[in-house]
Amino acid sequence: MKSESAGVDSVRVFFEPRSVAVVGASRTPGKLGNTVLKNLLTWKFPGQIFPVNPNPGDILGLPAYTSVSAIPHPVELAVIAIPMDYVLDVARECAGKGVKGMVIITSGFNEIGEEGARRQQELLRIARSAGMRIVGPNTTGIVNPYHPFTTTFVEMGAVRKGAIAFIAQTGMFAGLMLQRIMTAENFGLSIVAGLGNKSDVADHDILEYLAQDDNTKAIMMYIEGVKDGRRFYETARRLTKTKPITAMKIGRTPEGARAALSHTGSLTGSDAVFDAVCRQAGIVRASDFDELIDFAKMFACQPVPKTSRTAVVTLSMGAGALASDFCYESGLELVKLKPATLEKVARKSPSWAKLTNPMDIETMVELVGPVEGYRTAIEAALADENVDQCLIIGATVLQTESDVRFLESVRKAYPQKAISVCILGAKDVYERLFPAIEKYQIPVFPGLRRAVNALAALNRYRQLNRE
Amino acid sequence: MKSESAGVDSVRVFFEPRSVAVVGASRTPGKLGNTVLKNLLTWKFPGQIFPVNPNPGDILGLPAYTSVSAIPHPVELAVIAIPMDYVLDVARECAGKGVKGMVIITSGFNEIGEEGARRQQELLRIARSAGMRIVGPNTTGIVNPYHPFTTTFVEMGAVRKGAIAFIAQTGMFAGLMLQRIMTAENFGLSIVAGLGNKSDVADHDILEYLAQDDNTKAIMMYIEGVKDGRRFYETARRLTKTKPITAMKIGRTPEGARAALSHTGSLTGSDAVFDAVCRQAGIVRASDFDELIDFAKMFACQPVPKTSRTAVVTLSMGAGALASDFCYESGLELVKLKPATLEKVARKSPSWAKLTNPMDIETMVELVGPVEGYRTAIEAALADENVDQCLIIGATVLQTESDVRFLESVRKAYPQKAISVCILGAKDVYERLFPAIEKYQIPVFPGLRRAVNALAALNRYRQLNRE
Repeated sequence: MKSESAGVDSVRVFFEPRSVAVVGASRTPGKLGNTVLKNLLTWKFPGQIFPVNPNPGDILGLPAYTSVSAIPHPVELAVIAIPMDYVLDVARECAGKGVKGMVIITSGFNEIGEEGARRQQELLRIARSAGMRIVGPNTTGIVNPYHPFTTTFVEMGAVRKGAIAFIAQTGMFAGLMLQRIMTAENFGLSIVAGLGNKSDVADHDILEYLAQDDNTKAIMMYIEGVKDGRRFYETARRLTKTKPITAMKIGRTPEGARAALSHTGSLTGSDAVFDAVCRQAGIVRASDFDELIDFAKMFACQPVPKTSRTAVVTLSMGAGALASDFCYESGLELVKLKPATLEKVARKSPSWAKLTNPMDIETMVELVGPVEGYRTAIEAALADENVDQCLIIGATVLQTESDVRFLESVRKAYPQKAISVCILGAKDVYERLFPAIEKYQIPVFPGLRRAVNALAALNRYRQLNRE
Repeated sequence: MKSESAGVDSVRVFFEPRSVAVVGASRTPGKLGNTVLKNLLTWKFPGQIFPVNPNPGDILGLPAYTSVSAIPHPVELAVIAIPMDYVLDVARECAGKGVKGMVIITSGFNEIGEEGARRQQELLRIARSAGMRIVGPNTTGIVNPYHPFTTTFVEMGAVRKGAIAFIAQTGMFAGLMLQRIMTAENFGLSIVAGLGNKSDVADHDILEYLAQDDNTKAIMMYIEGVKDGRRFYETARRLTKTKPITAMKIGRTPEGARAALSHTGSLTGSDAVFDAVCRQAGIVRASDFDELIDFAKMFACQPVPKTSRTAVVTLSMGAGALASDFCYESGLELVKLKPATLEKVARKSPSWAKLTNPMDIETMVELVGPVEGYRTAIEAALADENVDQCLIIGATVLQTESDVRFLESVRKAYPQKAISVCILGAKDVYERLFPAIEKYQIPVFPGLRRAVNALAALNRYRQLNRE
């Protein structure tokens, strides 16, 4: 227990530092060391910032220091964005200064071969001897929107606060994913930890930190290689019972493994082993980035359904049949709806309408309009005791925010049942309804398969962790 | 041969009618029979339009007739949007009037059970005895942007002309797909044929028509059930050699089959049989709608590569490794690049940069900027004799239309090599680059897996049809 809480405390400095030195702070727009500093300023980082640059003078309005040692204040964290040849010297300086953590953006370590590996080894030795922790090297590092702080070297506007933590291995990819989440999704993040080469701080350190982080409800991980398999497994297994974890790993295949090795120097290891670890730890695997965010979104806002019994409400039976295929392939059971459920819908349908599951509401829409048609079928489905989750295949007959307002009360009335929505049809309608529906904590997906897969991920989580 | 050319001629009336009766034309906005008429007017259908409605007077500015028989001109095509109870009488009238084809939007036939099946049988008898062809019932029917004509009952703006034909079974789903294509894709369509219950006109009739349609370069099919397996197979096998066909079929699973049966009354049949038919006919299967449009887009604008030897150009080796996994799983070979290829890139990279395939151009971007970095790697890859296709993992360091202009000359210089692009990162950049790159006949996909799968579909096509 002691070492664990020490672990959490030694990692906390990366997320909530009181003072930061930016080593390699640059006056040239576009340079990494310029962007890192600029981000801290635009984010209004609440602690002290010390730019470090061999040439004295101000940088972006802050007085620069010619070295870490020259800073006349304590420094908790150092962000390193300088050429690889200088990193070891700076690390020694940081160690001498009593810096608690370094985020090393610089690349040129394990990932470039033997010489780099020696450099990384020496870096680690310096850090360990001083009790200093390292994130990286070869990474973008940290984002914490709650205690506004980031070491990201891509220019970045505010990151929405939210309930999902994102642990990523590699800089550029994680940065691009983050840009995508911030511009194309509605959910927010609790923290982002880009771990790069994982020379010191590894996934399990971050998972331990997240265990006590109240902002975090679900965790998404992008993994190239796991550093300490045993500790990863043990930490993940404890955590995922209360905070679901979904993970995407590259290097599943020989070609991917070869590419990953040349990247962060990660030995991706046997995929079968990783798969077994995930299964036993209760981690739900995602096979690509879309799945990773879809699953995390689902975990952060939906209850875990008691069974896989599913109702489908659709405007198009073609789409309903395709969804049925996907449900069947994903192990979701299209449940037989109770007579009382079908009766509620039949009352607003022509007599010849054949009602089943999926419930095709096309004829009801013609009689009572899209809002009443969808509302009737969705409420009936969720009220059905046989149903533990509902897939809603929305279509562009629902047009405006007010057309989907009924979903707010639907969500509140059935908090124990999971809901997944996809919207088919025109792009502009999708763009309107996507935020309008997610506002009610109901996740929306751009395609049928993704909406079904996200439901299936919830059920996979239940199977791994609750059965 | 005779029956085949007769087939083409008897189907032509659905795509290029000179005169159309809209039976069930309505004065009430929002009603199907109102929208069908409105679409014909806004599309500026060049032939004659005759609204038919029991109440005399104008509809949308056109004189209405109380019955088909009352129209004092020849009528080539009748679009039927009336309650099912009246359809047989109108069919008899049409037969008497010498109408050549009926598009029957009305539902309530095979798909509702025995009574409906009897109605469909009688409908067919009437049509056959008069040499009249039927599209439907239970469908949206036809879209032809080249000879502006549509029977669609969803309000629809102009449909972009293009090289892809879309044969779909079911009305609502096809309509929603079409909305999506028109609002979220850049490519255009040559025709859309929604066949509904396929009581008479079936897939093979449309394929025969497309064989002689110069506008069509590739065909996407959404299938619930195949009507005449033998003719489907024979027609498709001939056609796909020159005009690639991709098909998505619902009812692959027991649940999907049950749902499809309740929809268009289609017996979806054994999926294994359908799969064998596709394989032997040279049809590339798609498993969902995203794949269907991705594959068709690829077929319409990319050459069929001579081998599966692939080069990957990426800004993020994480994404490169993930792409490598997908390539491996899809049977695409990440080829060993020639020394001369790597040398071209090495000249613009720092000495320690490790170059391989995937080519990570991050360091080159830092030295020479994103445009020059991407251009150098892409040109080098495509010039490599070992490479027959190139996956470009674009990222938001490419920002504007002018950043990707070099792709125009790249596309022209290597017309025999296939290119597939995905763009990672911020949504607004994606939205800018998506049309900017597709303008050069280079397809762009929103995710890595989709970009790889589309390349794999081209190779699947080659394996089925050229090897």
